[in-house]
Amino acid sequence: MAAWSERLAGVRGVLLDISGVLLDGGKDGGVPIPGSVEALARLKRSQLKVRFCTNESQVSRKDLVGLLRHMGFDISEGEVTSPAPAACLVLKERGLRPHLLVSDGVRSEFHRIDTSKPNCVVIADAGESFSYQNVNKAFQVLMELENPVLISLGKGRYYKQTSGLMLDVGAYMKALEYACGIEAQVVGKPAPEFFQSALREMGLEAHEAIMIGDDIVGDVGGAQSCGMRAVQVRTGKFRAEHLARGRAATWGCF
Amino acid sequence: MAAWSERLAGVRGVLLDISGVLLDGGKDGGVPIPGSVEALARLKRSQLKVRFCTNESQVSRKDLVGLLRHMGFDISEGEVTSPAPAACLVLKERGLRPHLLVSDGVRSEFHRIDTSKPNCVVIADAGESFSYQNVNKAFQVLMELENPVLISLGKGRYYKQTSGLMLDVGAYMKALEYACGIEAQVVGKPAPEFFQSALREMGLEAHEAIMIGDDIVGDVGGAQSCGMRAVQVRTGKFRAEHLARGRAATWGCF
Repeated sequence: MAAWSERLAGVRGVLLDISGVLLDGGKDGGVPIPGSVEALARLKRSQLKVRFCTNESQVSRKDLVGLLRHMGFDISEGEVTSPAPAACLVLKERGLRPHLLVSDGVRSEFHRIDTSKPNCVVIADAGESFSYQNVNKAFQVLMELENPVLISLGKGRYYKQTSGLMLDVGAYMKALEYACGIEAQVVGKPAPEFFQSALREMGLEAHEAIMIGDDIVGDVGGAQSCGMRAVQVRTGKFRAEHLARGRAATWGCF
Repeated sequence: MAAWSERLAGVRGVLLDISGVLLDGGKDGGVPIPGSVEALARLKRSQLKVRFCTNESQVSRKDLVGLLRHMGFDISEGEVTSPAPAACLVLKERGLRPHLLVSDGVRSEFHRIDTSKPNCVVIADAGESFSYQNVNKAFQVLMELENPVLISLGKGRYYKQTSGLMLDVGAYMKALEYACGIEAQVVGKPAPEFFQSALREMGLEAHEAIMIGDDIVGDVGGAQSCGMRAVQVRTGKFRAEHLARGRAATWGCF
Protein backbone atom coordinates (compact mmCIF):
# COMPACT_ATOMS: atom_id res chain seq x y z
CA MET A 1 0.00 0.00 0.00
CA ALA A 2 1.28 3.42 -0.92
CA ALA A 3 1.73 6.01 1.83
CA TRP A 4 -1.16 8.44 2.37
CA SER A 5 0.93 11.41 1.26
CA GLU A 6 1.61 9.65 -2.02
CA ARG A 7 -2.02 8.65 -2.55
CA LEU A 8 -3.19 12.18 -1.88
CA ALA A 9 -0.61 13.81 -4.16
CA GLY A 10 -2.20 16.55 -6.24
CA VAL A 11 -5.49 16.56 -4.33
CA ARG A 12 -6.82 20.09 -4.06
CA GLY A 13 -10.38 19.42 -2.99
CA VAL A 14 -12.57 17.06 -1.00
CA LEU A 15 -16.13 16.02 -1.81
CA LEU A 16 -17.98 14.82 1.27
CA ASP A 17 -21.04 12.62 1.40
CA ILE A 18 -23.37 13.62 4.25
CA SER A 19 -25.54 10.72 5.48
CA GLY A 20 -23.32 8.05 7.02
CA VAL A 21 -20.26 10.32 6.88
CA LEU A 22 -21.25 13.43 8.83
CA LEU A 23 -24.39 12.11 10.51
CA ASP A 24 -26.60 9.11 11.02
CA GLY A 25 -30.16 10.17 10.20
CA GLY A 26 -33.06 9.28 12.45
CA LYS A 27 -35.63 10.73 14.78
CA ASP A 28 -35.43 14.51 15.06
CA GLY A 29 -32.88 14.56 12.25
CA GLY A 30 -30.43 12.05 13.69
CA VAL A 31 -27.06 12.48 15.38
CA PRO A 32 -23.60 13.60 14.22
CA ILE A 33 -21.08 10.80 13.80
CA PRO A 34 -18.49 11.21 16.58
CA GLY A 35 -15.56 13.36 15.43
CA SER A 36 -17.21 14.51 12.21
CA VAL A 37 -17.93 18.10 13.29
CA GLU A 38 -14.28 18.53 14.25
CA ALA A 39 -12.98 16.76 11.13
CA LEU A 40 -14.99 19.06 8.89
CA ALA A 41 -13.77 22.13 10.78
CA ARG A 42 -10.19 20.94 10.29
CA LEU A 43 -10.73 20.36 6.57
CA LYS A 44 -12.17 23.83 6.24
CA ARG A 45 -9.10 25.34 7.93
CA SER A 46 -6.83 23.49 5.49
CA GLN A 47 -5.82 24.54 1.98
CA LEU A 48 -8.32 22.08 0.52
CA LYS A 49 -11.52 23.11 -1.17
CA VAL A 50 -14.51 21.41 0.43
CA ARG A 51 -17.89 20.60 -1.12
CA PHE A 52 -20.76 18.34 -0.09
CA CYS A 53 -22.10 15.81 -2.56
CA THR A 54 -25.20 14.07 -1.24
CA ASN A 55 -28.05 11.95 -2.55
CA GLU A 56 -30.29 13.21 0.25
CA SER A 57 -33.71 13.54 -1.32
CA GLN A 58 -36.09 13.29 1.62
CA VAL A 59 -35.64 16.89 2.75
CA SER A 60 -34.84 20.11 0.91
CA ARG A 61 -31.29 21.38 0.70
CA LYS A 62 -32.27 24.31 2.90
CA ASP A 63 -33.66 22.10 5.67
CA LEU A 64 -30.70 19.72 5.44
CA VAL A 65 -28.21 22.55 5.85
CA GLY A 66 -30.26 24.01 8.71
CA LEU A 67 -30.14 20.67 10.50
CA LEU A 68 -26.39 20.28 9.97
CA ARG A 69 -25.63 23.81 11.14
CA HIS A 70 -27.74 23.17 14.23
CA MET A 71 -25.51 20.14 14.92
CA GLY A 72 -22.44 22.36 14.69
CA PHE A 73 -21.26 21.65 11.13
CA ASP A 74 -19.69 24.49 9.16
CA ILE A 75 -21.81 24.25 6.00
CA SER A 76 -23.85 26.55 3.79
CA GLU A 77 -26.47 25.87 1.11
CA GLY A 78 -24.22 27.00 -1.73
CA GLU A 79 -21.68 24.31 -0.87
CA VAL A 80 -24.12 21.41 -1.37
CA THR A 81 -24.70 19.43 -4.57
CA SER A 82 -27.94 17.47 -4.13
CA PRO A 83 -30.19 15.64 -6.60
CA ALA A 84 -33.47 17.57 -6.36
CA PRO A 85 -32.08 20.85 -7.77
CA ALA A 86 -30.18 18.82 -10.39
CA ALA A 87 -33.42 17.06 -11.36
CA CYS A 88 -35.20 20.41 -11.73
CA LEU A 89 -32.60 21.46 -14.31
CA VAL A 90 -33.14 18.22 -16.24
CA LEU A 91 -36.92 18.64 -16.13
CA LYS A 92 -36.72 22.21 -17.44
CA GLU A 93 -34.22 21.36 -20.17
CA ARG A 94 -36.36 18.51 -21.45
CA GLY A 95 -39.79 20.09 -20.98
CA LEU A 96 -40.84 17.36 -18.57
CA ARG A 97 -43.77 17.74 -16.18
CA PRO A 98 -43.31 15.29 -13.31
CA HIS A 99 -45.65 13.31 -11.17
CA LEU A 100 -43.74 13.48 -7.88
CA LEU A 101 -43.27 10.36 -5.78
CA VAL A 102 -41.41 12.23 -3.06
CA SER A 103 -41.72 13.07 0.62
CA ASP A 104 -43.40 16.29 1.69
CA GLY A 105 -40.02 17.46 3.01
CA VAL A 106 -38.49 17.84 -0.46
CA ARG A 107 -41.57 19.00 -2.37
CA SER A 108 -40.59 22.67 -1.98
CA GLU A 109 -37.56 22.07 -4.24
CA PHE A 110 -40.00 21.54 -7.12
CA HIS A 111 -42.20 24.58 -6.51
CA ARG A 112 -41.19 26.24 -9.79
CA ILE A 113 -41.83 23.08 -11.81
CA ASP A 114 -45.05 22.54 -13.76
CA THR A 115 -46.62 19.32 -12.50
CA SER A 116 -49.86 19.50 -14.50
CA LYS A 117 -50.62 16.68 -16.97
CA PRO A 118 -47.51 14.72 -15.98
CA ASN A 119 -45.37 13.20 -18.73
CA CYS A 120 -42.83 11.58 -16.40
CA VAL A 121 -42.38 10.38 -12.83
CA VAL A 122 -39.72 11.65 -10.43
CA ILE A 123 -38.96 9.30 -7.56
CA ALA A 124 -36.96 10.29 -4.48
CA ASP A 125 -36.32 8.73 -1.09
CA ALA A 126 -39.92 9.13 0.05
CA GLY A 127 -39.60 7.12 3.28
CA GLU A 128 -43.00 6.62 4.89
CA SER A 129 -44.61 8.20 1.81
CA PHE A 130 -43.78 4.97 -0.08
CA SER A 131 -47.27 3.68 0.71
CA TYR A 132 -48.77 1.11 -1.64
CA GLN A 133 -51.23 3.73 -2.81
CA ASN A 134 -48.53 6.29 -3.64
CA VAL A 135 -46.21 3.82 -5.37
CA ASN A 136 -49.15 2.38 -7.32
CA LYS A 137 -50.25 5.85 -8.42
CA ALA A 138 -46.76 6.51 -9.86
CA PHE A 139 -46.93 3.11 -11.58
CA GLN A 140 -50.31 3.95 -13.11
CA VAL A 141 -49.04 7.32 -14.36
CA LEU A 142 -46.10 5.59 -16.06
CA MET A 143 -48.32 2.93 -17.63
CA GLU A 144 -50.53 5.61 -19.16
CA LEU A 145 -47.59 7.24 -20.95
CA GLU A 146 -46.66 6.39 -24.51
CA ASN A 147 -42.97 6.70 -23.61
CA PRO A 148 -42.70 6.24 -19.85
CA VAL A 149 -39.87 8.30 -18.32
CA LEU A 150 -38.79 7.57 -14.75
CA ILE A 151 -36.23 9.88 -13.14
CA SER A 152 -34.73 8.59 -9.90
CA LEU A 153 -32.90 10.81 -7.41
CA GLY A 154 -30.09 8.36 -6.73
CA LYS A 155 -30.35 4.59 -6.73
CA GLY A 156 -29.12 3.71 -3.25
CA ARG A 157 -30.12 0.33 -1.86
CA TYR A 158 -30.39 1.42 1.75
CA TYR A 159 -28.99 3.80 4.32
CA LYS A 160 -28.44 3.72 8.02
CA GLN A 161 -30.54 5.53 10.54
CA THR A 162 -30.13 5.45 14.28
CA SER A 163 -33.05 2.97 14.38
CA GLY A 164 -31.49 0.61 11.83
CA LEU A 165 -31.04 0.11 8.09
CA MET A 166 -33.69 1.77 5.90
CA LEU A 167 -34.72 1.01 2.31
CA ASP A 168 -33.56 3.75 -0.04
CA VAL A 169 -35.03 5.05 -3.29
CA GLY A 170 -33.19 2.46 -5.40
CA ALA A 171 -35.40 -0.36 -4.14
CA TYR A 172 -38.56 1.45 -5.24
CA MET A 173 -36.92 2.52 -8.49
CA LYS A 174 -36.30 -1.17 -9.22
CA ALA A 175 -39.92 -2.02 -8.36
CA LEU A 176 -41.22 0.52 -10.89
CA GLU A 177 -38.64 -0.48 -13.51
CA TYR A 178 -39.74 -4.10 -13.27
CA ALA A 179 -43.47 -3.39 -13.17
CA CYS A 180 -43.33 -1.05 -16.18
CA GLY A 181 -40.59 -2.82 -18.15
CA ILE A 182 -38.47 0.35 -18.33
CA GLU A 183 -35.12 1.67 -17.13
CA ALA A 184 -34.90 4.70 -14.87
CA GLN A 185 -32.63 7.67 -15.48
CA VAL A 186 -30.61 8.40 -12.36
CA VAL A 187 -29.95 11.97 -11.25
CA GLY A 188 -27.51 11.99 -8.34
CA LYS A 189 -24.64 9.71 -7.41
CA PRO A 190 -23.33 7.58 -9.13
CA ALA A 191 -24.29 9.45 -12.34
CA PRO A 192 -21.11 11.04 -13.79
CA GLU A 193 -22.94 14.31 -14.62
CA PHE A 194 -23.67 14.76 -10.93
CA PHE A 195 -20.04 14.48 -9.83
CA GLN A 196 -18.98 16.66 -12.75
CA SER A 197 -21.37 19.44 -11.75
CA ALA A 198 -19.93 19.34 -8.22
CA LEU A 199 -16.39 19.54 -9.63
CA ARG A 200 -17.37 22.50 -11.83
CA GLU A 201 -18.65 24.34 -8.74
CA MET A 202 -15.27 23.72 -7.09
CA GLY A 203 -13.29 24.73 -10.18
CA LEU A 204 -11.37 21.46 -10.06
CA GLU A 205 -10.51 18.66 -12.46
CA ALA A 206 -11.49 15.13 -11.49
CA HIS A 207 -7.90 14.09 -10.76
CA GLU A 208 -7.59 16.93 -8.26
CA ALA A 209 -10.49 15.79 -6.06
CA ILE A 210 -11.25 12.98 -3.66
CA MET A 211 -14.70 11.70 -2.72
CA ILE A 212 -15.38 10.46 0.81
CA GLY A 213 -18.50 8.37 1.34
CA ASP A 214 -19.98 5.26 2.95
CA ASP A 215 -21.49 3.75 -0.22
CA ILE A 216 -19.17 1.55 -2.24
CA VAL A 217 -21.27 1.93 -5.39
CA GLY A 218 -22.79 5.41 -5.20
CA ASP A 219 -19.80 7.20 -3.68
CA VAL A 220 -16.62 5.22 -4.34
CA GLY A 221 -17.51 3.54 -7.63
CA GLY A 222 -19.24 6.61 -9.03
CA ALA A 223 -16.36 8.95 -8.24
CA GLN A 224 -13.74 6.55 -9.54
CA SER A 225 -15.52 6.11 -12.84
CA CYS A 226 -15.28 9.90 -13.24
CA GLY A 227 -11.53 9.82 -12.72
CA MET A 228 -11.63 10.98 -9.11
CA ARG A 229 -10.03 9.29 -6.17
CA ALA A 230 -12.33 7.95 -3.45
CA VAL A 231 -12.33 6.55 0.04
CA GLN A 232 -14.99 4.56 1.87
CA VAL A 233 -15.48 5.39 5.54
CA ARG A 234 -16.29 2.69 8.07
CA THR A 235 -19.32 4.54 9.39
CA GLY A 236 -22.91 4.81 8.13
CA LYS A 237 -24.08 1.82 6.15
CA PHE A 238 -20.59 0.29 6.02
CA ARG A 239 -20.69 -3.23 7.44
CA ALA A 240 -17.45 -5.11 8.05
CA GLU A 241 -19.08 -8.48 7.35
CA HIS A 242 -19.72 -7.40 3.76
CA LEU A 243 -15.98 -7.45 3.18
CA ALA A 244 -15.79 -11.04 4.41
CA ARG A 245 -18.92 -12.05 2.49
CA GLY A 246 -17.53 -10.43 -0.62
CA ARG A 247 -20.58 -8.24 -1.12
CA ALA A 248 -18.50 -5.08 -1.29
CA ALA A 249 -16.28 -5.29 -4.33
CA THR A 250 -13.50 -3.20 -2.90
CA TRP A 251 -12.75 -0.97 0.01
CA GLY A 252 -11.46 2.52 0.08
CA CYS A 253 -9.36 1.94 -2.97
CA PHE A 254 -7.65 4.74 -4.80
CA MET B 1 -52.18 -20.80 -38.57
CA ALA B 2 -53.30 -24.33 -37.84
CA ALA B 3 -57.01 -24.98 -37.25
CA TRP B 4 -58.18 -25.02 -33.62
CA SER B 5 -59.04 -28.72 -33.78
CA GLU B 6 -55.48 -29.46 -34.85
CA ARG B 7 -53.94 -27.24 -32.18
CA LEU B 8 -56.05 -28.85 -29.49
CA ALA B 9 -55.34 -32.41 -30.61
CA GLY B 10 -54.66 -34.64 -27.62
CA VAL B 11 -55.71 -32.08 -25.03
CA ARG B 12 -57.46 -33.80 -22.13
CA GLY B 13 -57.43 -31.05 -19.55
CA VAL B 14 -57.60 -27.29 -19.10
CA LEU B 15 -55.78 -25.23 -16.49
CA LEU B 16 -57.50 -21.91 -15.86
CA ASP B 17 -56.01 -18.79 -14.37
CA ILE B 18 -58.53 -16.91 -12.21
CA SER B 19 -57.79 -13.17 -11.98
CA GLY B 20 -58.17 -11.59 -15.41
CA VAL B 21 -59.70 -14.76 -16.84
CA LEU B 22 -62.72 -15.50 -14.65
CA LEU B 23 -62.96 -12.18 -12.85
CA ASP B 24 -61.54 -8.70 -12.53
CA GLY B 25 -60.75 -8.13 -8.85
CA GLY B 26 -61.72 -4.95 -7.09
CA LYS B 27 -63.97 -3.53 -4.43
CA ASP B 28 -66.11 -6.18 -2.72
CA GLY B 29 -64.16 -8.89 -4.55
CA GLY B 30 -64.60 -7.57 -8.08
CA VAL B 31 -66.83 -8.66 -10.94
CA PRO B 32 -67.00 -11.73 -13.19
CA ILE B 33 -65.70 -11.19 -16.72
CA PRO B 34 -68.72 -11.34 -19.06
CA GLY B 35 -69.29 -14.88 -20.34
CA SER B 36 -66.82 -16.53 -17.97
CA VAL B 37 -69.39 -18.17 -15.66
CA GLU B 38 -71.05 -19.79 -18.69
CA ALA B 39 -67.73 -20.72 -20.33
CA LEU B 40 -66.61 -22.53 -17.18
CA ALA B 41 -69.94 -24.34 -16.90
CA ARG B 42 -69.55 -25.49 -20.51
CA LEU B 43 -65.99 -26.69 -19.90
CA LYS B 44 -67.17 -28.63 -16.87
CA ARG B 45 -69.88 -30.34 -18.93
CA SER B 46 -67.28 -31.37 -21.54
CA GLN B 47 -64.97 -34.39 -21.45
CA LEU B 48 -62.09 -32.16 -20.39
CA LYS B 49 -60.60 -32.18 -16.92
CA VAL B 50 -60.61 -28.71 -15.41
CA ARG B 51 -58.32 -27.27 -12.75
CA PHE B 52 -57.59 -23.75 -11.55
CA CYS B 53 -54.00 -22.54 -11.39
CA THR B 54 -53.75 -19.13 -9.76
CA ASN B 55 -51.09 -16.89 -8.25
CA GLU B 56 -53.71 -15.28 -6.03
CA SER B 57 -51.94 -14.63 -2.76
CA GLN B 58 -53.91 -11.80 -1.21
CA VAL B 59 -56.73 -14.00 0.11
CA SER B 60 -56.88 -17.61 1.28
CA ARG B 61 -57.93 -20.36 -1.11
CA LYS B 62 -61.08 -20.84 0.96
CA ASP B 63 -62.13 -17.19 0.71
CA LEU B 64 -61.27 -17.06 -2.99
CA VAL B 65 -63.44 -20.08 -3.74
CA GLY B 66 -66.26 -18.67 -1.60
CA LEU B 67 -66.16 -15.44 -3.59
CA LEU B 68 -66.16 -17.27 -6.94
CA ARG B 69 -69.03 -19.56 -5.94
CA HIS B 70 -70.98 -16.50 -4.83
CA MET B 71 -70.48 -15.09 -8.34
CA GLY B 72 -71.90 -18.29 -9.82
CA PHE B 73 -68.71 -20.16 -10.77
CA ASP B 74 -68.69 -23.95 -10.45
CA ILE B 75 -65.51 -24.34 -8.39
CA SER B 76 -64.40 -26.10 -5.21
CA GLU B 77 -61.33 -25.70 -3.00
CA GLY B 78 -59.85 -29.04 -4.02
CA GLU B 79 -59.70 -27.92 -7.65
CA VAL B 80 -57.43 -24.93 -6.97
CA THR B 81 -53.62 -24.87 -7.10
CA SER B 82 -52.47 -21.66 -5.37
CA PRO B 83 -49.08 -20.52 -4.08
CA ALA B 84 -49.66 -20.16 -0.33
CA PRO B 85 -50.30 -23.88 0.31
CA ALA B 86 -47.40 -24.70 -2.03
CA ALA B 87 -45.14 -22.36 -0.05
CA CYS B 88 -46.16 -24.04 3.22
CA LEU B 89 -44.93 -27.37 1.82
CA VAL B 90 -41.59 -25.79 0.87
CA LEU B 91 -41.23 -24.17 4.31
CA LYS B 92 -41.90 -27.47 6.10
CA GLU B 93 -39.59 -29.48 3.85
CA ARG B 94 -36.72 -27.06 4.39
CA GLY B 95 -37.31 -26.26 8.06
CA LEU B 96 -37.84 -22.58 7.29
CA ARG B 97 -39.57 -20.20 9.70
CA PRO B 98 -40.88 -17.24 7.73
CA HIS B 99 -41.34 -13.60 8.48
CA LEU B 100 -44.57 -13.00 6.55
CA LEU B 101 -44.90 -9.94 4.32
CA VAL B 102 -48.47 -10.81 3.36
CA SER B 103 -51.97 -9.39 3.62
CA ASP B 104 -54.17 -10.31 6.56
CA GLY B 105 -56.47 -12.11 4.12
CA VAL B 106 -53.95 -14.89 3.41
CA ARG B 107 -52.35 -15.18 6.85
CA SER B 108 -54.66 -18.07 7.82
CA GLU B 109 -52.96 -20.28 5.19
CA PHE B 110 -49.82 -20.16 7.35
CA HIS B 111 -51.44 -20.93 10.70
CA ARG B 112 -49.63 -24.25 11.05
CA ILE B 113 -46.25 -22.72 10.24
CA ASP B 114 -43.76 -21.76 12.95
CA THR B 115 -42.99 -18.07 12.50
CA SER B 116 -40.81 -17.62 15.60
CA LYS B 117 -37.19 -16.51 15.11
CA PRO B 118 -37.61 -16.13 11.33
CA ASN B 119 -34.88 -17.49 9.07
CA CYS B 120 -36.51 -16.42 5.81
CA VAL B 121 -39.05 -13.97 4.40
CA VAL B 122 -42.18 -14.96 2.49
CA ILE B 123 -43.62 -12.21 0.31
CA ALA B 124 -47.08 -12.34 -1.26
CA ASP B 125 -49.32 -9.83 -3.00
CA ALA B 126 -49.87 -7.77 0.14
CA GLY B 127 -51.69 -4.86 -1.53
CA GLU B 128 -52.22 -2.02 0.94
CA SER B 129 -50.09 -3.91 3.47
CA PHE B 130 -47.05 -3.00 1.35
CA SER B 131 -46.48 0.03 3.57
CA TYR B 132 -42.93 1.39 3.83
CA GLN B 133 -42.80 0.15 7.40
CA ASN B 134 -43.82 -3.41 6.49
CA VAL B 135 -41.53 -3.67 3.46
CA ASN B 136 -38.65 -2.19 5.46
CA LYS B 137 -39.22 -4.67 8.29
CA ALA B 138 -38.93 -7.57 5.82
CA PHE B 139 -35.75 -5.95 4.45
CA GLN B 140 -34.27 -5.67 7.94
CA VAL B 141 -35.08 -9.32 8.71
CA LEU B 142 -33.29 -10.39 5.52
CA MET B 143 -30.26 -8.21 6.24
CA GLU B 144 -29.88 -9.80 9.67
CA LEU B 145 -29.67 -13.32 8.20
CA GLU B 146 -26.37 -14.97 7.40
CA ASN B 147 -27.93 -16.54 4.29
CA PRO B 148 -30.96 -14.44 3.40
CA VAL B 149 -33.77 -16.52 1.85
CA LEU B 150 -36.65 -14.72 0.13
CA ILE B 151 -39.61 -16.79 -1.07
CA SER B 152 -42.00 -14.97 -3.38
CA LEU B 153 -45.54 -16.18 -4.12
CA GLY B 154 -45.41 -15.47 -7.84
CA LYS B 155 -43.50 -12.67 -9.52
CA GLY B 156 -46.26 -10.89 -11.43
CA ARG B 157 -45.60 -7.30 -12.47
CA TYR B 158 -49.18 -6.10 -12.10
CA TYR B 159 -52.78 -7.18 -12.39
CA LYS B 160 -56.00 -5.51 -13.33
CA GLN B 161 -58.69 -4.49 -10.92
CA THR B 162 -61.92 -2.72 -11.76
CA SER B 163 -60.27 0.51 -10.53
CA GLY B 164 -57.19 0.12 -12.76
CA LEU B 165 -53.84 -1.65 -12.94
CA MET B 166 -52.33 -2.63 -9.60
CA LEU B 167 -48.71 -3.42 -8.67
CA ASP B 168 -48.25 -7.12 -8.00
CA VAL B 169 -45.85 -8.95 -5.70
CA GLY B 170 -43.10 -9.10 -8.35
CA ALA B 171 -42.41 -5.38 -8.03
CA TYR B 172 -41.81 -5.67 -4.29
CA MET B 173 -39.85 -8.88 -4.77
CA LYS B 174 -37.51 -6.94 -7.08
CA ALA B 175 -37.21 -4.13 -4.52
CA LEU B 176 -36.06 -6.58 -1.83
CA GLU B 177 -33.78 -8.47 -4.23
CA TYR B 178 -32.01 -5.23 -5.16
CA ALA B 179 -31.80 -3.86 -1.62
CA CYS B 180 -30.40 -7.11 -0.20
CA GLY B 181 -28.33 -8.19 -3.21
CA ILE B 182 -30.11 -11.57 -3.38
CA GLU B 183 -32.35 -13.54 -5.72
CA ALA B 184 -35.82 -14.65 -4.63
CA GLN B 185 -37.14 -18.17 -4.99
CA VAL B 186 -40.52 -18.09 -6.71
CA VAL B 187 -43.34 -20.39 -5.60
CA GLY B 188 -46.26 -20.12 -8.02
CA LYS B 189 -46.43 -19.43 -11.73
CA PRO B 190 -44.14 -19.45 -13.74
CA ALA B 191 -42.16 -21.94 -11.59
CA PRO B 192 -42.24 -25.35 -13.33
CA GLU B 193 -42.83 -27.19 -10.02
CA PHE B 194 -46.07 -25.28 -9.60
CA PHE B 195 -47.50 -26.30 -12.97
CA GLN B 196 -46.26 -29.84 -12.44
CA SER B 197 -48.07 -30.14 -9.11
CA ALA B 198 -51.28 -28.98 -10.80
CA LEU B 199 -50.79 -31.57 -13.56
CA ARG B 200 -50.20 -34.30 -10.97
CA GLU B 201 -53.51 -33.42 -9.32
CA MET B 202 -55.20 -33.79 -12.71
CA GLY B 203 -53.41 -37.04 -13.54
CA LEU B 204 -52.22 -35.59 -16.84
CA GLU B 205 -48.95 -35.25 -18.70
CA ALA B 206 -47.88 -31.77 -19.77
CA HIS B 207 -48.61 -32.40 -23.45
CA GLU B 208 -52.20 -33.31 -22.57
CA ALA B 209 -53.01 -29.98 -20.93
CA ILE B 210 -53.55 -26.40 -21.98
CA MET B 211 -53.12 -23.32 -19.77
CA ILE B 212 -55.42 -20.33 -20.23
CA GLY B 213 -54.32 -17.04 -18.69
CA ASP B 214 -53.90 -13.30 -19.19
CA ASP B 215 -50.20 -13.10 -18.29
CA ILE B 216 -47.78 -13.69 -21.15
CA VAL B 217 -44.91 -14.54 -18.78
CA GLY B 218 -46.53 -16.17 -15.75
CA ASP B 219 -49.22 -18.13 -17.58
CA VAL B 220 -48.24 -18.62 -21.22
CA GLY B 221 -44.45 -18.65 -20.93
CA GLY B 222 -44.46 -20.69 -17.73
CA ALA B 223 -46.79 -23.37 -19.10
CA GLN B 224 -44.94 -23.60 -22.40
CA SER B 225 -41.60 -24.07 -20.71
CA CYS B 226 -43.16 -27.09 -18.96
CA GLY B 227 -44.22 -28.60 -22.27
CA MET B 228 -47.86 -27.54 -22.02
CA ARG B 229 -49.80 -25.63 -24.59
CA ALA B 230 -51.07 -22.19 -23.60
CA VAL B 231 -53.37 -19.43 -24.74
CA GLN B 232 -53.49 -15.78 -23.67
CA VAL B 233 -56.95 -14.28 -23.27
CA ARG B 234 -57.65 -10.70 -24.25
CA THR B 235 -59.17 -9.85 -20.87
CA GLY B 236 -57.61 -8.93 -17.52
CA LYS B 237 -54.24 -7.24 -17.81
CA PHE B 238 -53.99 -7.93 -21.54
CA ARG B 239 -53.46 -4.66 -23.42
CA ALA B 240 -53.63 -4.61 -27.20
CA GLU B 241 -51.08 -1.79 -27.45
CA HIS B 242 -48.44 -4.05 -25.94
CA LEU B 243 -48.57 -6.14 -29.09
CA ALA B 244 -47.88 -3.08 -31.22
CA ARG B 245 -45.20 -1.81 -28.81
CA GLY B 246 -43.60 -5.21 -28.82
CA ARG B 247 -43.71 -5.52 -25.04
CA ALA B 248 -45.49 -8.86 -25.19
CA ALA B 249 -43.16 -11.31 -26.83
CA THR B 250 -45.89 -13.43 -28.32
CA TRP B 251 -49.60 -13.90 -28.16
CA GLY B 252 -51.59 -16.99 -27.52
CA CYS B 253 -49.03 -19.12 -29.23
CA PHE B 254 -49.15 -22.86 -29.07
